Amino acid sequence: MTGLADLPIRDDLRGLSPYGAPQLDVPVRLNTNENSHPLPEAVAEAIGKALAAELRDLNRYPDRDALALRADLAGYLGHGLTADGVWAANGSNEVQQQLLQAFAGPGRSALGFTPAYSMHPLLALGTGTRWVPARRGADFALTADEAVEQVREHRPDVVFLCSPNNPTGTALDPAVIGAVLRVAPGMVVVDEAYAEFARPGTVSALSMLPGHPRLVVTRTMSKAFGFAGGRLGYLAADPAVVAAVQLVRLPYHLSALTQAAARAALAHCEALLGTVVEIAEQRDRIVSELRRRGLRVADSDANFVLYEVGGDQSVAWRTLLAHGVLVRDVGLPGWLRVTAGTRAETDAFLAAVDSIQREGSIAPQPRPTKGTS
Amino acid sequence: MTGLADLPIRDDLRGLSPYGAPQLDVPVRLNTNENSHPLPEAVAEAIGKALAAELRDLNRYPDRDALALRADLAGYLGHGLTADGVWAANGSNEVQQQLLQAFAGPGRSALGFTPAYSMHPLLALGTGTRWVPARRGADFALTADEAVEQVREHRPDVVFLCSPNNPTGTALDPAVIGAVLRVAPGMVVVDEAYAEFARPGTVSALSMLPGHPRLVVTRTMSKAFGFAGGRLGYLAADPAVVAAVQLVRLPYHLSALTQAAARAALAHCEALLGTVVEIAEQRDRIVSELRRRGLRVADSDANFVLYEVGGDQSVAWRTLLAHGVLVRDVGLPGWLRVTAGTRAETDAFLAAVDSIQREGSIAPQPRPTKGTS
Repeated sequence: MTGLADLPIRDDLRGLSPYGAPQLDVPVRLNTNENSHPLPEAVAEAIGKALAAELRDLNRYPDRDALALRADLAGYLGHGLTADGVWAANGSNEVQQQLLQAFAGPGRSALGFTPAYSMHPLLALGTGTRWVPARRGADFALTADEAVEQVREHRPDVVFLCSPNNPTGTALDPAVIGAVLRVAPGMVVVDEAYAEFARPGTVSALSMLPGHPRLVVTRTMSKAFGFAGGRLGYLAADPAVVAAVQLVRLPYHLSALTQAAARAALAHCEALLGTVVEIAEQRDRIVSELRRRGLRVADSDANFVLYEVGGDQSVAWRTLLAHGVLVRDVGLPGWLRVTAGTRAETDAFLAAVDSIQREGSIAPQPRPTKGTS
Repeated sequence: MTGLADLPIRDDLRGLSPYGAPQLDVPVRLNTNENSHPLPEAVAEAIGKALAAELRDLNRYPDRDALALRADLAGYLGHGLTADGVWAANGSNEVQQQLLQAFAGPGRSALGFTPAYSMHPLLALGTGTRWVPARRGADFALTADEAVEQVREHRPDVVFLCSPNNPTGTALDPAVIGAVLRVAPGMVVVDEAYAEFARPGTVSALSMLPGHPRLVVTRTMSKAFGFAGGRLGYLAADPAVVAAVQLVRLPYHLSALTQAAARAALAHCEALLGTVVEIAEQRDRIVSELRRRGLRVADSDANFVLYEVGGDQSVAWRTLLAHGVLVRDVGLPGWLRVTAGTRAETDAFLAAVDSIQREGSIAPQPRPTKGTS
């Protein structure tokens, strides 16, 4: 039998495993930051109708530029955006891959402040971009000074910022974005996959687009819209950025079905985003309940919470799994990430945590915490 | 206003235009080799039902490995294939991009025999792969000797072969594939996007997969299945190749809707492929009618025909457009490519050709033709 090692794959891929959280059939799945709420029946029906209207004509290629969808996305985002400043693809992974293909790639570099979204370095690998792992400060925070210093040192062609950051959950102070924009020699990509969940008063980088043609804000419909299965990511930026991405996008990359389903979902965005408040409540509940149990917890503006288990996180992960709760081990020693879902899921998660604490299999070791971290 | 030139895009992208045929609203569109037949009502209904069943759960990510779809595709292909030897993505463009990411990319090269599918060099560009344009022989043919000589000379990491070739239309002698497999130092990708339209007796490279772990056959549902709007491309190869591609694929690249729609279409493949015979008849009719008019025409195993216009092909393209018929100027001096569609579309195309010949705006210059070319 032929093995991977027998094939002439690229040397930088040898020994790697495919990216992805375990897809396990478990009662409570809180590992991939999905929106736990199924689509409302009425919205599902509307999407179904929109899809049905496309089916006879599936023999034709879709609109290569997805103009109607991009106009709808611009309308949703506001900030005076129009279709020419918006681009969409099959998930924000593909959007970000296209950005790297256009602005990074062989002989160029991209920088991110780890821990951050773990796909960024993999997208760099897949596009032949040199990856620069920059550091975050204490408690996973990132100050303007720390960011500026590292951008100045490495002069990357693309800087990734995550706000709210994944897996830590905290939104970025816009002053950090502004400071990075001033010193970055190339593009600055702010990944706002979880923006809709941010606590009141959080400022989106969308508001900084005017006058910053090297700023790109990426978003997704996977989280707040509950559209993970539909795969729709997008970006907002200067129209010149959209023109650049169109040089590397695969022609007809977005199917007629994706375009129609996403447009129908956007037409019902109020109904879909109705779950956001409820999820944010559960998120805040998880944060406060875990802190009440003496655990360190990162501030969260997202639909997930990063918390310190007080021991080996891989053991804690397995123990929770044995209790029917699947969370995410993001590889941060001592920490786990749990998605905020329905009230019942939070109940189940907290009950599992309590049960494990009682059993003493993961004895939390309360330590002095500083402020709200 | 910011222009593309003001942004730090890659130097190798500067000055390029996005790929794509003009999407014009014309009565007779024969420019992108779509299947002109809308989906049968019954099949559209079945796909609609399959999609409706997915909608409530769109909040969940799709099966990252698309296992059920890959099993269905393997069943369709036959040749003893199973899901582990099949991979699918959003169009064969994405499949081929993934192959280049895994087996080519920075510091490596890919070779194709031009004229061939014009996306191959663009996929190379987008993945940082050095592109080697190899030559075809007289009348766009490719002999084993010509192919072997150029593969030996350039030692590319990936060789693209097209069978049937696009834009010329002719299927490749399997002896050429065998000869290339013997001398190629890397992967050999046979692009069989149009395989279902091949004339009787044409051999698919699928039959050569056993014992050739470096052979990859790519296919698409865009053409014979009339599923261009659904975006589903796939490959068949040794399971180790599939494992390699999984190292570079974007997680959740195939939406739940794409997977469900493609599976429903495959379940009705007999009804969908019912158009193939009809299209092949129109294809053969176009070939013989154009030859009867004294034009040189390439043999076609696809759903399109390449023919010599006897003059400047860009003038001929515009003249046909003025007659309401959109064909493709693939940039081959003196030649145009026309898609074989419905009988009515062939009628309209031939009527336009006749009308133009009568007007004398493109005077065909009959020349001695050799054999059937």
